[in-house]
Amino acid sequence: MSQHTGKTGVVVRNIQRADAALIDELKRFGVATIHEAQGRKGLLGTSIRPIQQGTVISGSAVTVLVAPGDNWMFHVAVEQCRPGDILVVAPSSPCTDGYFGDLLATSLKAHGVRALVIDAGVRDTHTLREMGFPVWSRAISAQGTIKETLGSVNLPLVCGGQLIHPGDVVVADDDGVVVVRRNELANVVDASRARADLEEQKALRLARGELGMDIYNMRGRLAEKGLRYVDSIEELGE
Amino acid sequence: MSQHTGKTGVVVRNIQRADAALIDELKRFGVATIHEAQGRKGLLGTSIRPIQQGTVISGSAVTVLVAPGDNWMFHVAVEQCRPGDILVVAPSSPCTDGYFGDLLATSLKAHGVRALVIDAGVRDTHTLREMGFPVWSRAISAQGTIKETLGSVNLPLVCGGQLIHPGDVVVADDDGVVVVRRNELANVVDASRARADLEEQKALRLARGELGMDIYNMRGRLAEKGLRYVDSIEELGE
Amino acid sequence: MSQHTGKTGVVVRNIQRADAALIDELKRFGVATIHEAQGRKGLLGTSIRPIQQGTVISGSAVTVLVAPGDNWMFHVAVEQCRPGDILVVAPSSPCTDGYFGDLLATSLKAHGVRALVIDAGVRDTHTLREMGFPVWSRAISAQGTIKETLGSVNLPLVCGGQLIHPGDVVVADDDGVVVVRRNELANVVDASRARADLEEQKALRLARGELGMDIYNMRGRLAEKGLRYVDSIEELGE
Amino acid sequence: MSQHTGKTGVVVRNIQRADAALIDELKRFGVATIHEAQGRKGLLGTSIRPIQQGTVISGSAVTVLVAPGDNWMFHVAVEQCRPGDILVVAPSSPCTDGYFGDLLATSLKAHGVRALVIDAGVRDTHTLREMGFPVWSRAISAQGTIKETLGSVNLPLVCGGQLIHPGDVVVADDDGVVVVRRNELANVVDASRARADLEEQKALRLARGELGMDIYNMRGRLAEKGLRYVDSIEELGE
Amino acid sequence: MSQHTGKTGVVVRNIQRADAALIDELKRFGVATIHEAQGRKGLLGTSIRPIQQGTVISGSAVTVLVAPGDNWMFHVAVEQCRPGDILVVAPSSPCTDGYFGDLLATSLKAHGVRALVIDAGVRDTHTLREMGFPVWSRAISAQGTIKETLGSVNLPLVCGGQLIHPGDVVVADDDGVVVVRRNELANVVDASRARADLEEQKALRLARGELGMDIYNMRGRLAEKGLRYVDSIEELGE
Amino acid sequence: MSQHTGKTGVVVRNIQRADAALIDELKRFGVATIHEAQGRKGLLGTSIRPIQQGTVISGSAVTVLVAPGDNWMFHVAVEQCRPGDILVVAPSSPCTDGYFGDLLATSLKAHGVRALVIDAGVRDTHTLREMGFPVWSRAISAQGTIKETLGSVNLPLVCGGQLIHPGDVVVADDDGVVVVRRNELANVVDASRARADLEEQKALRLARGELGMDIYNMRGRLAEKGLRYVDSIEELGE
Repeated sequence: MSQHTGKTGVVVRNIQRADAALIDELKRFGVATIHEAQGRKGLLGTSIRPIQQGTVISGSAVTVLVAPGDNWMFHVAVEQCRPGDILVVAPSSPCTDGYFGDLLATSLKAHGVRALVIDAGVRDTHTLREMGFPVWSRAISAQGTIKETLGSVNLPLVCGGQLIHPGDVVVADDDGVVVVRRNELANVVDASRARADLEEQKALRLARGELGMDIYNMRGRLAEKGLRYVDSIEELGE
Repeated sequence: MSQHTGKTGVVVRNIQRADAALIDELKRFGVATIHEAQGRKGLLGTSIRPIQQGTVISGSAVTVLVAPGDNWMFHVAVEQCRPGDILVVAPSSPCTDGYFGDLLATSLKAHGVRALVIDAGVRDTHTLREMGFPVWSRAISAQGTIKETLGSVNLPLVCGGQLIHPGDVVVADDDGVVVVRRNELANVVDASRARADLEEQKALRLARGELGMDIYNMRGRLAEKGLRYVDSIEELGE
Repeated sequence: MSQHTGKTGVVVRNIQRADAALIDELKRFGVATIHEAQGRKGLLGTSIRPIQQGTVISGSAVTVLVAPGDNWMFHVAVEQCRPGDILVVAPSSPCTDGYFGDLLATSLKAHGVRALVIDAGVRDTHTLREMGFPVWSRAISAQGTIKETLGSVNLPLVCGGQLIHPGDVVVADDDGVVVVRRNELANVVDASRARADLEEQKALRLARGELGMDIYNMRGRLAEKGLRYVDSIEELGE
Repeated sequence: MSQHTGKTGVVVRNIQRADAALIDELKRFGVATIHEAQGRKGLLGTSIRPIQQGTVISGSAVTVLVAPGDNWMFHVAVEQCRPGDILVVAPSSPCTDGYFGDLLATSLKAHGVRALVIDAGVRDTHTLREMGFPVWSRAISAQGTIKETLGSVNLPLVCGGQLIHPGDVVVADDDGVVVVRRNELANVVDASRARADLEEQKALRLARGELGMDIYNMRGRLAEKGLRYVDSIEELGE
Repeated sequence: MSQHTGKTGVVVRNIQRADAALIDELKRFGVATIHEAQGRKGLLGTSIRPIQQGTVISGSAVTVLVAPGDNWMFHVAVEQCRPGDILVVAPSSPCTDGYFGDLLATSLKAHGVRALVIDAGVRDTHTLREMGFPVWSRAISAQGTIKETLGSVNLPLVCGGQLIHPGDVVVADDDGVVVVRRNELANVVDASRARADLEEQKALRLARGELGMDIYNMRGRLAEKGLRYVDSIEELGE
Repeated sequence: MSQHTGKTGVVVRNIQRADAALIDELKRFGVATIHEAQGRKGLLGTSIRPIQQGTVISGSAVTVLVAPGDNWMFHVAVEQCRPGDILVVAPSSPCTDGYFGDLLATSLKAHGVRALVIDAGVRDTHTLREMGFPVWSRAISAQGTIKETLGSVNLPLVCGGQLIHPGDVVVADDDGVVVVRRNELANVVDASRARADLEEQKALRLARGELGMDIYNMRGRLAEKGLRYVDSIEELGE
C-alpha cells in the first residue's frame, strides 16, 4: 500500500510474484508495444538508460530504497531475491554515485537475479557487460558508496517517476523500462499479443510499399481537419 | 520562403532536389569537414545524436512539422518521399516522446528513404539498428504518440537550431548532422574535396611525427602573441 | 603550484613524470577500485565520458588550457609530449565545440601519446575509434575551432571538477576518469593491489551464493540500527 | 489505490479531505521542517519551483492527470474543487508547455483554490503574481495547450517524483513542495511543532554565538571518527 | 532571404521596419496571447529568460550574429540601430559567456534601443536592472568576451530555436519571447485584439464562479470521449 | 598545497587572511570587472547562483569539504571563522540536498561571517533573505542532511570548477562568484580600480551617443578583417 512509500528500516519477506510463464512471454513484445498495450502508462522516465545494447529482459520486481551515497540495502536485498527477479532501486534523494559494481552483480547472478534497474549510478560497467549482467541506470560513476544508513526492501517506491510495487513486472530493452502491475499482467500479455500480431501484418503491407495513410484510412480525417495539398510553396502567397 | 516556417495544415507536393551524384559524393567527406568547407555554418545542435555507430548518410530533406506527442504527419510525409530522401522532423513544441519506430521505418525503407533526423524521440531502437535504418534523434523513449493534430510537410522548419528547407542536403555521421543549402551544394562539394585532399597530405606528415607547429608555421605568430617557454614552473615566481 | 592555475601564455618544458612501470600496473585495477584505494578522491565529474567502449588506459598528464572555441595550444602541446603521456585539456570557459579530430590524433599517436581527456567536445569520433585512439570528452561536436588565442601547457588546471597537475597520473575506463597525484602513485598502487586481491576472494564466495550480509558480518549492525523484518506489508498497519 | 495511477477518462467526485484547522496550522512550519518532522520523505523534486517569492501555502490536493500539451482536464477539475484545495497536476508524458494562465487562475480563485503545483509549464506569470495566485511549476512557457484528450481528476499520480493521492496535504514555500499523507497529518503537525519549538531555542543560543558543536555535543564523536586539528597545512607533510 | 543565415562579415544597412504604432499596440497583449493569436508559432525556446520581472517590451529586430566568446559585432550593430529597435543576438556556436554589460547597455540606450534578446549570456545584471534596460538571455555569466572575429548584422538568424529576420517584431515579457513576421503584424494585432477582448469577457464570468466547462460547452464532448464520473475510487474495482 | 585537495578528517586552524581594507575595497568593482582585471580567470561556473538579488559581498574564504548529504562539517567550520569570512563549501560527490538553513545562518552571522558560497543545495531561503544572510548555491532543496561523515576545513577544494584555497578572497554579486588569490589581491585591486575608472569615462561618452566603434577605433581593423557593408540583402545575390 502506497502510504508506506518512503518508509525505511523495514524488509518485507513475503511478496507475491506473478505467473512465471506470463512474465517470460511478456518479454518478447518489447517495452514500446507493452506500454501501448496497457493503455500508455507505466513507462519510466527516459533518463533511465541501458548500459548495454540489444538486451531485453522481464522479471518480478524486488524493490530497494537506498540512502544517497549508501548501498547497504543491496546486501540485505540479495537474501530476499529468487530466480527470475529484477532488482529495482531508488535513492531517497537524487544521487548519481556508482552504487553497484561487479561484486554485487556476481552475488545477484548467483541468486538468479536477471537485471538491475536503478534511478542512480553504477560502475564497473565494462565488467558488467562482459559478465552479461544487464543494467538500466540514470548514471555511470566510478564513485563508490558507503554502508551507514538503513533503507527498505520490498516497500513500494518511485523509480524513474513511476510507482513500483514489489512483485510488479518489469520489462526493459534498448528503449527504456516499463512496469506492469502484477494483477494486470494476464490482460497486458493478451493485449500485447494482439497488438504484436496486428503490427506484424501491417509491417508486411508497409514493406511492400503500401502507405500507412491508406492502410489506416487517414485521408478522409486529414481532409476534414483541413489538410491542404499545394503543388509548390509559391501557392501559399507571401 | 521562411515566412511559412511554422505554418500547419499544408503539404507541398513538388519540391526541388539537388543533383543526386553530388549528394552521394558529399557523404564521403563527413560532417566535420563539410561544416568547415562551407564556412562553419549549418551544423545542428549536439543534442541530436545517432542511435547507431559507424554510419554516414547523405540525402535530400523532406521536412515534417509535427505537433507534440503526435506523429500523424509521418504517414502523410511518406507519400511525398522519393528514393534518396531523408526525413527531417521537428515538433512545434519541445517533446521527447518516441514518435518513430519499426513500422514507420519499414514504410520509409520501402520508399527508399535513407534516414531520419528528428528533434524529438524515437523507439524500437534495437530493431531499427537491426534493420539498418539510421536515425539521429534528441531522445529515445518508448512512449508512443497519437494521431490528432495536423502539422505540415515540406515547409521550412527549425531542427536542432538550424533552418532547413525541403530539398536542402543533409549529411549525418557519428559526430552529428549538417545541412547544406541546395543551391550551394556544388560549391560545398568542391570545397570539401579540396579540404579533404589537403588533410590527407597533412595526415601523412603528422603520422611521420612532424609537428603541426612547423607544418602550419605557427612559431612566429605564437611568439608575437607572447607565448613564453619556461623550463620549470618555479621560473614563474609565486 | 596552484596559484598558476588559469594563467595563459606559458609553456612549461620540463615536468616530472612518475615511474613508468607503476603507471602501467595501475591500469589493471580500473577507475572504481583506484578511486576507493586512494580514499575516494580524484574522480572527474561524470559528464566526461568515453567515446569508445572497453578501453582502459593509464598515463602521465600533459595539461593544456585552451580558449573557448580555439585549439591552437594542442599544436604547441604535441612538442611537449613523450611516449606514455595523456593529454588533459580544459577550456578557460565552458565550450562544447569539437576541438580535436583525426589529424591531431594522428600527430599525438606519432609521438606516443596514449589518450585524450578533455572537458569540451571532440569530432571525427568514428575515425578515432577506427584508429584506436581513445578519448574521454564532455561532448561530441562536428563544430571545429580556430587558432587565435594563447592558452598554456603544463600548468595545473581544473578538468571535470578536479585539479590536475602536469605529471599526475590519469586512469580512464568505461566508468570515467580518475587522477592520482604523482607523489602518491606508489601508495595508491599498493592499496589498489590489496583491494583487488580482497575483492577477488570475495567474488569467489559471492559466486557460490554466499551472502554479502554474512561475509561482511552485517546482521548485527543492521539490527542495531533498527532494521525490522516483517512477513508481509500488512504487519506495518496502515 | 495506486493501481489506478495513470488511468485516464475518470473523475472521482468524492474524496476525503484532512482536518482544515490542522492543514492551516501545518503551513507555519515551512517545507524543510515538515520534511524532517515526517521522517525525511514526501519532498517533490527540486525542479518544481515557485514563480513568486515569499509565499507559503498549505492545502488539500485535488489531483489532475493531463495529456502532453493538453489542459482540458483543468476545466473538469475546477468543478471538483472546494475552498482550501490545491490543484496538483502532472502530465502523462514530459511537457514544458504553458498549461495554465490568468483565466484558469481567475476561475480557481473564484472557487477558493489556494495554489497550483504542476510538473509542467505555466504562463501569464506576471499577471499571476499580480493576482496573488501562487504557483509552483517545472517551467514557464508562453506556449499554450489544446483541449483534445482526456486525463483524470482525483486519481493518485506522480508529481515531481512523489506519489500524491487526492486529499493528501500539500505545503509549498520558497524551498519547494512537500506532501503529507492525509492519515498522517495529525502526527506530522505534532512532530513539526516539537521540532519548531526546539529550533527556536537553538536559534537563540546560536544567535548569542554558542557553537553548534557544543550545543549538540559533537566534539567527542568527531574525535572518535578521527577528526584531527592541525595548526597549519604544513603539519600534514607533503 | 534565409540562404544567408549564418553568413559572416556582412552588415546590411537598410532594413525595413514595421509600423511603429502597431508595434507599440502589440505590446499590450503579452507574449502568450500573441502566440495564440498568430496560430501558435514564433515562440522562442523557454531557456531564453528575463533578467528582470514585470517588464513587457515590443520592438523591431536588429539581428546580430556573433562568434562564441566574442562580442565585437555589438559595437558594429549599435550604429545600425534606431529608436524603437530591439537587439536580437545569437552566437554561431553555443556559448554562455557574458557578452553584454552596463557599458553596451548605456550605448544602446543612448540610441533608443529598447531591449536585448540574446541566446547566450549577459553580465552586470544588477546594474542593468537599475538602469531599466531589459534583457532576455540564456545565461548570466560574469565571464566577458573578446573582439577578434567578425559576425554579421541584419542577416536572418536562429535565436532560441526560431528564425528571426531583421525588421521582424519581437515581444517579450515574464513568460518569454515571441517573434511576429513584419508583414503579418497588422493581422496579428487584429487577432490579438479580438482574442484579448474575448478573454476579458470570459474572465468576468469565471470570476463570478461560472465554470469553463459550461462557458465553453465542454460537457457533451467530454462525455463523447468517454469521461466517466464515479463517486469514489472504489467504484473502479481493483 | 594542492596535493591535500580532497583529504578528509582534517581541520586547519591557522590560515592566513588578506588585508581587510583591500578585501573591502575589492567589493565595489563587482565580479565582472574583477574577473577581467585579473586576466579573465577565477570565475566559478554559472550554476552557482545567488538566492537573493542586488547583494554584493567580498570576504576571506574558509573552505569546507562535506560528504554528500552530510553537513556535519559546517558545525566544525563555524569555530574557525572570523568576522569578514565567507564560507566556501563543496561536496566530495555531486549533491543538491539542502545542507544549510536558518539555524546555521544564525550561527555564522553571530560569528561575523558574511556569506555562503556552496556547490550544493540550501533551504529556508525565504528566511535567509529576510535575515539578510547572502547565499550563492547550485540548488535550492528542502531536503535536509545528516551528521555522520567527516570532511575537512581549510584545505584547498574545487568549488564551481575553480580551485579555492583558505584565505583566498571571494567576491560575489548578481552575476556570480569570482575568487582572487590571496597574494594577488593588491595587484587585482589596482587593476580593477584602473579598469573601473576607464569604464566610467567610456560610459559618459557612450551615454552621449558616441559609438564604441569610434571610441575604440575599430573601423580600420573591421575593414581589414573584411567587414562589408551592403545597402540591402539583395546585394548579396542568392
